[in-house]
Amino acid sequence: MELKVIGTVRSALAEPMEAPKQGPETGQRAVIELDPAWQPALEGFRAGQHLWVLCWFRRTKPFKMRVHPRGDPSRPLRGVLATRSPNRPNPLSLTLVRLVSLEGNRLQVAGLEAVEGTPVLDIKPWVPGIDQPQDEAK
Amino acid sequence: MELKVIGTVRSALAEPMEAPKQGPETGQRAVIELDPAWQPALEGFRAGQHLWVLCWFRRTKPFKMRVHPRGDPSRPLRGVLATRSPNRPNPLSLTLVRLVSLEGNRLQVAGLEAVEGTPVLDIKPWVPGIDQPQDEAK
Repeated sequence: MELKVIGTVRSALAEPMEAPKQGPETGQRAVIELDPAWQPALEGFRAGQHLWVLCWFRRTKPFKMRVHPRGDPSRPLRGVLATRSPNRPNPLSLTLVRLVSLEGNRLQVAGLEAVEGTPVLDIKPWVPGIDQPQDEAK
Repeated sequence: MELKVIGTVRSALAEPMEAPKQGPETGQRAVIELDPAWQPALEGFRAGQHLWVLCWFRRTKPFKMRVHPRGDPSRPLRGVLATRSPNRPNPLSLTLVRLVSLEGNRLQVAGLEAVEGTPVLDIKPWVPGIDQPQDEAK
């Protein structure tokens, strides 16, 4: 199981502490700079579409089995897998973003709270139906 | 970037060819057997909840830059990242499942089309709002 870094996040966020918690209203802009070798693999993406971005969070804290959800000590400890904490057994992030523009190997996206230099492992289209609980799907 | 296998899929599917394409209606049952060491990290999951399961697809085909969506040759070639093909630069799967039951380190789930023995890398709760395009969120 060998991971390939296919791209890098270009972001105004320098430190993890600056990154807002994931949420629908952040709209944080960032650019995913794909390794030019993979550029043909982007064909078919179009602006306005929603994408999943999977990154490797390099700068996570030491792993804990249980955490306070959203880092809020007033909330009871919960198993880390049952939260979206980045400090997971494998620091794989999963973020739904909106593709603002695609130019060559550069994807400008809205909603990606990742620090400058974060390695990108995968990009997938959001697909209605399979990416929605059935009772939420239209 | 070193991946830890945190669990294994126990499934009636022996071969990738038997696996149905991802879709909302498959409802394929499978069990995720977590390494017992990680069992405390599951605390807080409850039956009925929707989860993301991230696996490593070991038995993918040689990687192609462009593929026919859903393996259908009548559909024009598209960049592989713009599809959900498992034959990606990093064979990371992303599947939304429903948790049927959690007993100890065993999660019975509905909607996971993965073959017996597939390594599991991460499990995350599906979170309304952040995992939905804003225009689809309630």
